[in-house]
Amino acid sequence: MAKQNNDFTVSQNAGRRNNSVRGRQQGAANKGMQPNTNGKSYSAAKEKRATEQPKLRKTGRKHEDISVKIAFLGGLNEVGKNMTLYECGEDMILVDCGLAFPDPDMLGVDLVIPDFTYVEQNIDKLRGIFITHGHEDHIGGLPYLLQKINIPVYGTKLTVGLIEGKLSEHDLLHKVTLNIIKPKDKIKLGCFEVEAIHVNHSIPDALALAINTPAGLILQTGDFKIDTTPIDGDVIDLARISRLGEKGILCLLSDSTNAQRAGFTPSERTVGESFERLFAKADGKRLIVATFASNIHRVQQIIDVAKSVDRKVALSGRSLENVVSTASQLGYLNVPDGILVNIDSISRYPDDKLVIITTGSQGEPMSALYRMAFSEHRRVEIGSGDYVIISATPIPGNEKTVGKVVDELLKRGAEVVYEKMYDVHVSGHACQEELKLMLSLAKPKFFIPVHGEQKHLRKHAQLAESMGIAPGNIFIADNGRHISLTKRKMTVLEDVTAGKVFVDGYGVGDVGNAVIRERKRLAEDGLMIISAVIEKDTGMLVAGPDIVSRGFVYVRDSEQLIAEAKLVAQIVVDECVHEGRVEWGTIRNRMRDDISRLLYDRTKRSPMVLPIITSV
Amino acid sequence: MAKQNNDFTVSQNAGRRNNSVRGRQQGAANKGMQPNTNGKSYSAAKEKRATEQPKLRKTGRKHEDISVKIAFLGGLNEVGKNMTLYECGEDMILVDCGLAFPDPDMLGVDLVIPDFTYVEQNIDKLRGIFITHGHEDHIGGLPYLLQKINIPVYGTKLTVGLIEGKLSEHDLLHKVTLNIIKPKDKIKLGCFEVEAIHVNHSIPDALALAINTPAGLILQTGDFKIDTTPIDGDVIDLARISRLGEKGILCLLSDSTNAQRAGFTPSERTVGESFERLFAKADGKRLIVATFASNIHRVQQIIDVAKSVDRKVALSGRSLENVVSTASQLGYLNVPDGILVNIDSISRYPDDKLVIITTGSQGEPMSALYRMAFSEHRRVEIGSGDYVIISATPIPGNEKTVGKVVDELLKRGAEVVYEKMYDVHVSGHACQEELKLMLSLAKPKFFIPVHGEQKHLRKHAQLAESMGIAPGNIFIADNGRHISLTKRKMTVLEDVTAGKVFVDGYGVGDVGNAVIRERKRLAEDGLMIISAVIEKDTGMLVAGPDIVSRGFVYVRDSEQLIAEAKLVAQIVVDECVHEGRVEWGTIRNRMRDDISRLLYDRTKRSPMVLPIITSV
Repeated sequence: MAKQNNDFTVSQNAGRRNNSVRGRQQGAANKGMQPNTNGKSYSAAKEKRATEQPKLRKTGRKHEDISVKIAFLGGLNEVGKNMTLYECGEDMILVDCGLAFPDPDMLGVDLVIPDFTYVEQNIDKLRGIFITHGHEDHIGGLPYLLQKINIPVYGTKLTVGLIEGKLSEHDLLHKVTLNIIKPKDKIKLGCFEVEAIHVNHSIPDALALAINTPAGLILQTGDFKIDTTPIDGDVIDLARISRLGEKGILCLLSDSTNAQRAGFTPSERTVGESFERLFAKADGKRLIVATFASNIHRVQQIIDVAKSVDRKVALSGRSLENVVSTASQLGYLNVPDGILVNIDSISRYPDDKLVIITTGSQGEPMSALYRMAFSEHRRVEIGSGDYVIISATPIPGNEKTVGKVVDELLKRGAEVVYEKMYDVHVSGHACQEELKLMLSLAKPKFFIPVHGEQKHLRKHAQLAESMGIAPGNIFIADNGRHISLTKRKMTVLEDVTAGKVFVDGYGVGDVGNAVIRERKRLAEDGLMIISAVIEKDTGMLVAGPDIVSRGFVYVRDSEQLIAEAKLVAQIVVDECVHEGRVEWGTIRNRMRDDISRLLYDRTKRSPMVLPIITSV
Repeated sequence: MAKQNNDFTVSQNAGRRNNSVRGRQQGAANKGMQPNTNGKSYSAAKEKRATEQPKLRKTGRKHEDISVKIAFLGGLNEVGKNMTLYECGEDMILVDCGLAFPDPDMLGVDLVIPDFTYVEQNIDKLRGIFITHGHEDHIGGLPYLLQKINIPVYGTKLTVGLIEGKLSEHDLLHKVTLNIIKPKDKIKLGCFEVEAIHVNHSIPDALALAINTPAGLILQTGDFKIDTTPIDGDVIDLARISRLGEKGILCLLSDSTNAQRAGFTPSERTVGESFERLFAKADGKRLIVATFASNIHRVQQIIDVAKSVDRKVALSGRSLENVVSTASQLGYLNVPDGILVNIDSISRYPDDKLVIITTGSQGEPMSALYRMAFSEHRRVEIGSGDYVIISATPIPGNEKTVGKVVDELLKRGAEVVYEKMYDVHVSGHACQEELKLMLSLAKPKFFIPVHGEQKHLRKHAQLAESMGIAPGNIFIADNGRHISLTKRKMTVLEDVTAGKVFVDGYGVGDVGNAVIRERKRLAEDGLMIISAVIEKDTGMLVAGPDIVSRGFVYVRDSEQLIAEAKLVAQIVVDECVHEGRVEWGTIRNRMRDDISRLLYDRTKRSPMVLPIITSV
């Protein structure tokens, strides 16, 4: 038996492959709840419950039994809206509060944030929130959280600078306490002591967090990579991580984004070398480089190479201008005097003396690069004198939009460097060898892969297993999972509330699945409105039926169909009068059914049919 | 001057990189039309027009001046709806008539077919249509074309078999003449003689077409790859292509799908070898293999390996069942007796004695694999006893849906082989080395890359240039382009009508951009209907205003907003009465504007606002 190694109590008898799911189910069962199981393994888990229950009930208050709880509020089985909650006794702290971008089927939704219900329920215990770095998937939900609960925020200088921008947009800046921390700082909040550890990532000033709790040390890596030649010169603090590993890490929560990729993520510096080659190649042409606004080291490298070949730099895209302004003010970006020129004045410079840095590397509609590609940009008209470098890889789901932008640029005669042509992009996340290095230095007792979809989490779990972590000590979590850790064991608790909250315009959470379903219906086949005024007592038609349709057919070509629908409406009213059923509700329902049927028979489409019956 | 090599008259003075665009513009200018130019090069082209015009007007009727015209009706700057028209004197033939799948922004559209206007305008000249192979992007538009014009169809046995299935669904089978041809056949239609040439592709029985015209020989490759160990044993007929090349090919139209990929596409047989390894690895588990229904050689290999390890085979997915039935009847699929079992009876077989072949390799919602992944499949429940192989690569745009299906399968405990794990898929299209081989054997005077997006076409053009084809003899076409070829020169003619026609339910073309725009608006923010009945002469309210909203807000949580909107409607009516402006049109427009403003102010959303004002 693997008992010595395997301290994930609830799953120690479970099979290898499914331990996490079973673990959860058994843990849940111990709490007396009905586990919400999807797989086939439920019945097997159920059978084992009886024998294990007594052992699990043993909750003596020895030192080894002091527990810390972790609730996963976002970032599991998704890329985005990262948020983790730690609880120990009467204290809670949060790590990150990100947003996610909506899936294409979340029609009209602007962005998605975590469900804060569980946080609000525990408002009295909350001591603060730590932000690992300034990316949207780690800070984007913060304004919405801070609207509800006012807790102190901790982050590095750049992270706090970017948060300030966000909060002032939401008119929250004066209300919130922002605390700047730096690597090696230790912040004591209640029973937690949180130590900031410098890591490399695609934005400067990123942190891992070593969270000291009475139950033991938890290391949450945040997003990280190992860059031995970073642009800012500061390599990830592996020395500190290995010292902590030697002292003993109870649990590691590590970034799974690139868990499927073999090898080692190249250094950001390699991109600069590519820029040098490509800028030389583009001799005589205007250079346009698209990248993520927040990738300040990338922007720095573009500026550096531009300077070396005596080109001016213009910025296009609001988010880019904001980030560059914040980063230069805070000293994270070194912009030589006179190199930046306003995008409105680029016509004064010859093509070969100019680099335009732009947003839109993901093909986002209305981004600066998109507008350039589709000839909608006020200042930049693309032609054969342009050399465009897309310094990014399409995020899954964006391949087609990026492809369209590339095609449009090519059609206008530009040369375009994109996808894997040359090395114009590196990831900000650790690949397999780096993840294994992290595991080998941290040597955690328990391991929880975070930040990724199921396939990333699974692969990362496999890597950990291959490094010798006992399978039963590895937990594949999901949003809403709640676990308890002691020095000896990991127990899965009853789920907490977690989920997606849609932000649409000013509305937060007022668009839910019902509204989305209606939008889908409308998007698919449009609608037809039939309006009629009937006499209250007799049900006789006073006016109408009239028909308005939108998004259904081109009305001018469908006069016959519209006439037929009118006739059906008329017949429904006549029949109802004849039958003496003159309530408008009856008339409305019959009209909707009969006209829906007619339209489907004629067109094989199901527009939303809305009869508006007014009785006077 | 490059005159000796460069016979693309209209572009001989044009610069290297932009010749195709300029060529078109100048050609168009010669026809007296205003060229529809996007790029910067237009003014340069315009300047040159004056000097070149006399030369272009020279149209003596010598032998060398006999021309063949090609109109590109689909498949350029897109993947899908391939269709090409050839014209010589009073004769026309078509090659292929495909469909395209709608982009995500073509809301509610089922499929997209070419615009047949130009074909219909020339109905008297049309002699027939040749189909290169049975894929949807080559046959899918055929029923819609044949509904309009009845012309004989030519294709190989399998292709015709698949077309028959389509036509019978559209109740067209009895009306149409289908002609089965085989490789090496030569069909004379008017002044054309079309020779069928066997090629390899991801469906059996695919053809290239050698189109003999009085102006010279045109080779259209269709979709092809070079597979020296194909499943059916028949290697692409390179011998015939090289003989034709030696005799002289005027123009080559070649498949550009994989023009960006270096090297050589691996043989389909390598996939069978991967199946052997994986089937052994999956020992004890149930195997589920997802693939394209039409990839009959893939299906054959699955069946062969299943037989060798003594497993039964069940099929899930209507299109797969249809294709397997057609292909076995016609002798393209060898299904050993007793190996196929009905999907409804799979519970009778142990997991390790079963392979389920399924559709859904692109993550298509409602496909068999999708339903399995989301526990909606009637017969197949996924669990830890399943080993799923997705034997396909996501088509650009499908990455995210495929990823979701993989994640769901993993969550249910299945092992999943996908993306580039192991070699479970090969492309059906030629990579760069094969394209270069084709170019080197065909040695065409003129070259037109077809079947691909701009980036594919450009790359293929570069490959041709690197093979020694004069840049001025290479034409990057677009849908609607119309060219004329003589032995000496290529001239760009005035564009013909081409474009996208949307099929939605029974409707063909009745959903256009206006309807799509309405659907987008509805999808984004929903709608609000304000109904009111007014007295005809006074404009006074008789009933209402009442409000119905769909897809906008969750009404129960937004009572105040609805009440405000009602109030605004009331105020508009009152004001109009006060001002004596009692026409319902005035009231309606003002109501729409005022309520739209209110809703935007309150929610930052712009639902469609539809006032329904009835006067009685």
